[in-house]
This record gives sequence, structure tokens and C-alpha cells, in this order.
Amino acid sequence: MTSIQFRPVALEHASRLINHGPTVLVTAAHAGRRNIMAAAWSMPVEFTPPRIAVVIDKSTYTRELITASGGFGLIVPGAALMDLTYAVGSASGRDLDKFAHHGIDAGAGPALGMPVLEHGCAAWLECRWIKEERSEQAYDTFFGEVVAAAADARIFDHGHWSFTDANADLHTLHHLGAGKFVVAGNQIQAKVPAGQQT
Amino acid sequence: MTSIQFRPVALEHASRLINHGPTVLVTAAHAGRRNIMAAAWSMPVEFTPPRIAVVIDKSTYTRELITASGGFGLIVPGAALMDLTYAVGSASGRDLDKFAHHGIDAGAGPALGMPVLEHGCAAWLECRWIKEERSEQAYDTFFGEVVAAAADARIFDHGHWSFTDANADLHTLHHLGAGKFVVAGNQIQAKVPAGQQT
Repeated sequence: MTSIQFRPVALEHASRLINHGPTVLVTAAHAGRRNIMAAAWSMPVEFTPPRIAVVIDKSTYTRELITASGGFGLIVPGAALMDLTYAVGSASGRDLDKFAHHGIDAGAGPALGMPVLEHGCAAWLECRWIKEERSEQAYDTFFGEVVAAAADARIFDHGHWSFTDANADLHTLHHLGAGKFVVAGNQIQAKVPAGQQT
Repeated sequence: MTSIQFRPVALEHASRLINHGPTVLVTAAHAGRRNIMAAAWSMPVEFTPPRIAVVIDKSTYTRELITASGGFGLIVPGAALMDLTYAVGSASGRDLDKFAHHGIDAGAGPALGMPVLEHGCAAWLECRWIKEERSEQAYDTFFGEVVAAAADARIFDHGHWSFTDANADLHTLHHLGAGKFVVAGNQIQAKVPAGQQT
């Protein structure tokens, strides 16, 4: 495996990083405390400005940190990080610093200082929390606007994904439940409908 | 390919059908009119009761039908339906009946009568629309409660997915953008963290 090649992603392309439904890691940090959890439930809601939704349970420590700090990170882990992805989704960060416990090497996002991971990951997005009390209370659904993003150029470059055999360890994880994942790998192109510009 | 083997899915397992972020088809019907579109942006928001969120643009005919009828269908197409999935996402149903145009064989869902597809599909969910004006207006985000669901037992049975070489044409599609998809196929199991019950 060659070394990581993270490069900034233009904000108008940021929603594409989670367009295909990967399981993500959600991070947050506030006043010297930090946490990381897994979330299968996220989606883009808008391309411009790039906005996303993610489900954050009321019981989570991450939710406390998001509402305290006003931001969060979404990390797209590669297939090689499956065990870590499942492990950080199975324990609470109230009891331990999961970064230290799992030896996770996190940097600070350029816009908000949220923890971001690159080693073994396909991409990260740093998001500003958009407070929406109703959807947070009724559906645990948080909205955010992407204010910085980056991806490993080996799999996402100039706004486009490219899944190949050579970057298999960066292929995205999609959680089926109970630690069972499918990996997205076989990239195919649909026939362009007649009359449509590509 | 053997014939389709759709069976009802228990409602407490319904959210699992889209847990891994597949691109879905959204259907709706009202007063003799019907439509089908593609949506990459959906996610579960709750297991019990099974509730989901899906982004439906204000310009779509589907949105008119959902708000008129109070329900919608989510269909999980298999890989073999890639061209159809892209095609129905690239034209408006205001101008033509896309079911007739593409020769789509749709049944009526048992709870609400929403159009459901089985041939070439992994699963479908029939949802009751939960009106949430703020998230619909601000983020085009619709919430729904699953009131009926079914899946092809060759790939989802007794509440569990099973992706194998034998059911490759039912593997789920994940849209990267512009008709480019990845197929979820390689199913793997994470190491269970110490101390956790499985």
C-alpha cells in the first residue's frame, strides 16, 4: 500500500463523498474532550450548499459534543478499517478516549478543528451543525453544512470516485447489521438515457 | 436465474433493508396517476417503529403524489436493474407513465396500495408519509413509517442479508453520480469487540 494522498475536495463535490451510502465515523471535540462513533445512517440532502443529515442517538456522548461545539466530522473509512469501525460503534466514549484506546491517529479539521482521520480512510467531511430542534428530537436527525472536505486521490479525485482493484483497501463499507458489512467494489456505468446530456 | 421469491419482512427488521445505503426507487400513486423515480438519498432513522427519511426534490411529480396520497414506496433494485434505475431517475413522470414506458411490472402494496416492484429487486418497503413541514421545506427531507415490507428470500431472509455469488443480480446498487454505480457484494464480518454480546 502506498502512502495516503489526501487532497482537498471542492465544496460543490463534497456531497458525492457519501452519495452512495457508506457507513461513516462521526467525530466531535469540545473543550479538550473528543469522541468517535460509527453511523450507518447518513445521507446528503443538498449539493449546493453541501448539506447532509446524520442520525445521532440521544444517548450518545458524540451528541453532547456536537451540540456543545457546533460541529462534527464525518469520516469515510476504507474496507481495511472494518474492525475499527465496528469497535468504535460498540462502546461509549464517556468511559474512555476511543482515539487513545484504539491508537487512532486523528488530525484537526481546517475549518472547525473537528477530529479527522486519513490513514486507511477514503475521505472526510467537516460539518457545521445546523440546529433543527424538531427533527433532532423526533427522529434523532441532525443536519449539517459541509465546510471542508478532503479525500484520498487514489479513490476520489477531481470530484469523481474511481473504485479499482488497486485501491481495494479504500473501498467503502456498508453496514448490514451486527458487524456484518458489504464492501462496495464493482464499479459500473449505466446506459445514458436517450436525449440526456452527460 | 430462478424465479422471484418475495416474502413479507417483519416490521422490526424493515429498517435493515436500507441500512447499508442502497440507491432506491421511490414510487407513489394517487387517483389513477402513478410515478417512479430514483433516490440515492435515503436512510433509516429508527428501528422500532421502523422509520426512514428520504430526500424528494420540490420539483418532482413524485412529491405531488406523496403529499396527495399520504404514502410512498421504496424499492431496492438489484444490480441487473441498473439501466432502469438510472433511466427512471432521468425523466419526469409528468410527461409520461414511466411504468408503461419502461415496461415495469408493478403490484400494489398491501397496506397503502403504493406501487411495488419485485422482479429484479431485492426488497420493497411501503411507507406512510409523516408530514414534517420544516424539514420538507428546508431540506426536501421526508419522513415515513414503514407499514409493510417484503424481500426476496434469496438475498434477505429471516431478518438477515446474505450477499453471495449465487444472488449477484440482486446485489444492491449505490450511486456515485452521473450513472456511475458501485455494487455492494463482498460480504464480510467484523471481529466482535471483547465483552460484547452478539
